[in-house]
Amino acid sequence: MTKGLVNKKRRVHFTPDNVDIIVEEGANLLQVAIDAGVHISASCGGAGVCGTCKVLIKEGEVESTRTEKLSDQEYEQGLRQACQSRVLTDLTVYVPVESRLERAVLARESKGMAEALATGWRFNPPVSKLFVKLPPPTLEDNASDLSRVLRGLKQQYKLRNMTVDFDVVEKLPQILRDSDWKVTVTTLVTAVEPRAVDRRRPRVINVEPGDTRERHYSLAFDIGTTTVCGQLLDLNRGKVIAQGIDYNQQISYGEDVITRIAYCQKPGGLQKLQQVVVATINGVIRQLSSQSQVDVEHISHLTVAGNTTMIQILLGLDPKYIRLAPYTPAANFIPPVKASSVGIRVGGHVYLFSFPLVASYVGGDIISGIVGSGVYQREKLTFYMDIGTNGEIVIGNSEWMVTAACSAGPAFEGGGVRHGMVATNGAIEEFDISPSNLEPVIGTIGGEKPKGICGSGLINIIAGLLEAGVIAQDGKFNTNLPTKRVRQGSDGYEYVLAWAAETQIGRDIVITESDIDNLIRAKAAMYAGCQTLAKSTVIACAKFDQVIIAGAFGSHIDVEKGITIGLFPDVPRDRFTFIGNGSLLGARLVSFSTDILDDARRVAKMMTNFELSENADFMNNYVAALFLPHTNADEFPSVKEKLFGLQKVN
Amino acid sequence: MTKGLVNKKRRVHFTPDNVDIIVEEGANLLQVAIDAGVHISASCGGAGVCGTCKVLIKEGEVESTRTEKLSDQEYEQGLRQACQSRVLTDLTVYVPVESRLERAVLARESKGMAEALATGWRFNPPVSKLFVKLPPPTLEDNASDLSRVLRGLKQQYKLRNMTVDFDVVEKLPQILRDSDWKVTVTTLVTAVEPRAVDRRRPRVINVEPGDTRERHYSLAFDIGTTTVCGQLLDLNRGKVIAQGIDYNQQISYGEDVITRIAYCQKPGGLQKLQQVVVATINGVIRQLSSQSQVDVEHISHLTVAGNTTMIQILLGLDPKYIRLAPYTPAANFIPPVKASSVGIRVGGHVYLFSFPLVASYVGGDIISGIVGSGVYQREKLTFYMDIGTNGEIVIGNSEWMVTAACSAGPAFEGGGVRHGMVATNGAIEEFDISPSNLEPVIGTIGGEKPKGICGSGLINIIAGLLEAGVIAQDGKFNTNLPTKRVRQGSDGYEYVLAWAAETQIGRDIVITESDIDNLIRAKAAMYAGCQTLAKSTVIACAKFDQVIIAGAFGSHIDVEKGITIGLFPDVPRDRFTFIGNGSLLGARLVSFSTDILDDARRVAKMMTNFELSENADFMNNYVAALFLPHTNADEFPSVKEKLFGLQKVN
Repeated sequence: MTKGLVNKKRRVHFTPDNVDIIVEEGANLLQVAIDAGVHISASCGGAGVCGTCKVLIKEGEVESTRTEKLSDQEYEQGLRQACQSRVLTDLTVYVPVESRLERAVLARESKGMAEALATGWRFNPPVSKLFVKLPPPTLEDNASDLSRVLRGLKQQYKLRNMTVDFDVVEKLPQILRDSDWKVTVTTLVTAVEPRAVDRRRPRVINVEPGDTRERHYSLAFDIGTTTVCGQLLDLNRGKVIAQGIDYNQQISYGEDVITRIAYCQKPGGLQKLQQVVVATINGVIRQLSSQSQVDVEHISHLTVAGNTTMIQILLGLDPKYIRLAPYTPAANFIPPVKASSVGIRVGGHVYLFSFPLVASYVGGDIISGIVGSGVYQREKLTFYMDIGTNGEIVIGNSEWMVTAACSAGPAFEGGGVRHGMVATNGAIEEFDISPSNLEPVIGTIGGEKPKGICGSGLINIIAGLLEAGVIAQDGKFNTNLPTKRVRQGSDGYEYVLAWAAETQIGRDIVITESDIDNLIRAKAAMYAGCQTLAKSTVIACAKFDQVIIAGAFGSHIDVEKGITIGLFPDVPRDRFTFIGNGSLLGARLVSFSTDILDDARRVAKMMTNFELSENADFMNNYVAALFLPHTNADEFPSVKEKLFGLQKVN
Repeated sequence: MTKGLVNKKRRVHFTPDNVDIIVEEGANLLQVAIDAGVHISASCGGAGVCGTCKVLIKEGEVESTRTEKLSDQEYEQGLRQACQSRVLTDLTVYVPVESRLERAVLARESKGMAEALATGWRFNPPVSKLFVKLPPPTLEDNASDLSRVLRGLKQQYKLRNMTVDFDVVEKLPQILRDSDWKVTVTTLVTAVEPRAVDRRRPRVINVEPGDTRERHYSLAFDIGTTTVCGQLLDLNRGKVIAQGIDYNQQISYGEDVITRIAYCQKPGGLQKLQQVVVATINGVIRQLSSQSQVDVEHISHLTVAGNTTMIQILLGLDPKYIRLAPYTPAANFIPPVKASSVGIRVGGHVYLFSFPLVASYVGGDIISGIVGSGVYQREKLTFYMDIGTNGEIVIGNSEWMVTAACSAGPAFEGGGVRHGMVATNGAIEEFDISPSNLEPVIGTIGGEKPKGICGSGLINIIAGLLEAGVIAQDGKFNTNLPTKRVRQGSDGYEYVLAWAAETQIGRDIVITESDIDNLIRAKAAMYAGCQTLAKSTVIACAKFDQVIIAGAFGSHIDVEKGITIGLFPDVPRDRFTFIGNGSLLGARLVSFSTDILDDARRVAKMMTNFELSENADFMNNYVAALFLPHTNADEFPSVKEKLFGLQKVN
């Protein structure tokens, strides 16, 4: 049934958000929700294959293509995949709890942010405000306005040979006269070329009337595939004065970078994704400004860190070749660009600094994390791991560094898992199991009734099931156990974590063999990456002096459980450090210190990237790691002892 | 009579241009002409006081304010001042020959352009095209596209630490792949900071597919108050391949810089004047492109020289403070800016380099002329003089330079002179007088019947009249001569150069005492400036080793006559050099040589500006120079000998 009518207007009302939008008959319902600002999960970017965008049509009629992602029961209840539905009449649409993204709990991710680990840096922000009092011009001294300002900077601050943004010249004459020749000059070190401190040539980027030094702020952002986190920094006091976070609005166009890159290849796709991530950033800037009561016009600088795809899309650089072998990014060192030129709502003088990056899948967020955590400053051998859909790892110290991206897949973020979900309210995170009756004890984020399982929950559950003998080392269920929680499901065997009545979704929440298999593959990719990199440097994983786990998700993993399933290397537990959002950490430090800015460039240059995707050694290691914790038990002696204590040998 | 009606549409037809325009009833006729692209002289910028914008209303009715600039006879003929008239009905308007600006004869100004006098420079244009063949990326070498290009530049051209324009990154990935990894990179040395050659850091401004080195052009422009001259340069062969010229469309808004600055203070005035000069430049670029068959997209650079007001308006920098004491320009060194950002229709990668300037009335055109003529390279003492409404002079050599602007007034360009006109067809330029019967022999530009007198004609006429004893050294007529050509006119005594029947304008063309007085004041300002500057350096004007006369107008002055009236210093005639448009000359050399670019900056820094406007010494010198050639005859010994040969002493 395809209606040829166009231009008929229909009203769509979304609950529980209580948002109305008028659209044309025939409009795609997922797009309608995006336009209305209603966030619906759509992991596959609207291709119809993930089934995460289910909505309930409470009133009215849609034209919908049914896929196997909807059960008969769901279809009869009125559930439809938003991406597969077109508006026919006025509608009332209910977005079920499991399809919703909840903003309130995002703030959780910013807790536990580690303090800076990088040390020894001086507080010398790349952007400075300098107050100059100038003698007014006379007939004897009628040098140009700009020359007068530069002379003032030379006399009062020993700055010479500065470059000047043309825009400054435009407003200079009026500002000088309006302010009685007392002005504040903003300068920026772009550090495109690292130089000795005394040879740096800061650029004059702004001039303001009077003495505005007291109002001197900077923004640090982590542009994540899922969330965008920002901090407002007071550059006079060197501290964070506001912190904000939101979902990256690009989520509605696909959950991972590959889906996003694919979307960019559609006509207008790149522009659209750029526009929505900029809208997200602008929203976070509004949060920061309102929290802190700081006027946006007093922000002097913006530092962003993110993976290569996120940064390229933000800057309008087509990410097409990131996805195609041999996976080249547009640039490793991105030239300075005005933040306003990409649509970010800050003053026209504000430059956007984006971290240098190493490769298509080892982005500026990794450099930011390495710099922020000070790995490059220490002699001790560090293993740095940023866990997520695109897991990245680094091994090295102050002398050398190797890095690689491991395509772990979305399991850590709840993707490809029957009841997987992002780490928001209602996600099962804590898990314990009674050895006697194999009954679970679960804890959810926010303490609500469960509605799904987040990535760290998944690790805890699998480790618990393994230790209790409910699953074997190959991830298969022991089907001879005296519990009705282990049962045959539609995808093979499964374990019931919560009965329907105990949940928010009215269905049993289970973990299936297929889910476990997905997680094993994800952790195997990370560990195989670690082994492959380590081998390339003739080091064993057990020899790491320090293990740094980055990523908001990573912070919630229990070290012991992470080792039990073979995700983390089996080193003494006190060598582990969790730094939370390492990307944001580094972005903040760069805002505070030009030394760190120089270091970032140096670190990016010294890092050697390994492409694992077609590496034979990696494939062997990967296959060997498809076991809990590993086919070679000697890689995990402490787990071996825990699981098979009696068999301990040597 | 003021009609309250608005929105009635009227058609105005201009002859002889044959241009129609539909306007609203009540529209100002000068503005209507401007909008229609019909050039009408309006020296005063539409204030009604100059009387140069007279037009003949052939059909239809205007509402017009009559000023004393229209005689009874003219008024009855139907002549009106366009600036004082408003459209009431459909009109046919004839623009008389003396109110018209004729484009055809402008080309005359570019004849006699001297060859470069600056010597010893290397041909090393600031903009370069470099062809690089890059190895395609592989999994073993998948550095970013930009890193690959920079590596290529380093390997093939020893270029390192380059800065890159962000725009280049945007298009790089596609271009590299479309061109099989063979591209041409355009680099630019902006020379904001002079450096040793080996420390220059060129900027990557463009990348094109394939090898485009063969198509590598640059533009050099002189932006004059009256005319805009441009040259298209072939950077592979180091030669001019096309030359174009047009009136600066700003003429319709006032003849001199002061009127233009005043216009900029009106709402939207600056934007309007910027827009029309940019339109003029774009028109000249079209001429150049069509003459040479060079596509605009192959132009890599643009150099402009002009006086401070012209450059500030071109760049959208309010010239307000140029006119107000103590006369400060916005900047002496204008930061690089994209040509397209001010509306110039060239590729988005093309930068506009404008010459550094010394002061509000000693602009980049003077630096350009000094650099082009090589004054700064020689030990010999040079006097450099750019003659025009805003006469500028420079005294110096390779060791030092002093400069000043002399407000000569518009007499040299035909302003404030009853039958004065710009040097176009029909202007009387040559003049001789029969000592026996005091009858004139005149020659006009283009050989047409006369319609007025141009500046160089005025000098020739006054010198002739002086030598023949028709006027005395104070510029007053000898009224006891046996000729009817000397007669009492409405402005005092006058000499008839051509009888009405011999002219294009149907009226006697005369030179009046008031005209002569205006020219004496103009030349006195120039010479007094020269004396004042010379005295500040303890040098007598007669000691100059070289005199360089710049300005298209200057090239047409007879040296002997110029000395006779006391405009030029009385030095041996073989020390004079006429360089024509020195401003364009320097702009061309900078396009050819980065050495010259560096020199321009150095010259601007070494030049000391004297403000003459409130200098007591200048005022004394000025009063002393209000005589032909001078009250102190010893300043002009050769003239003294010519006029009073018998009285020669010592």
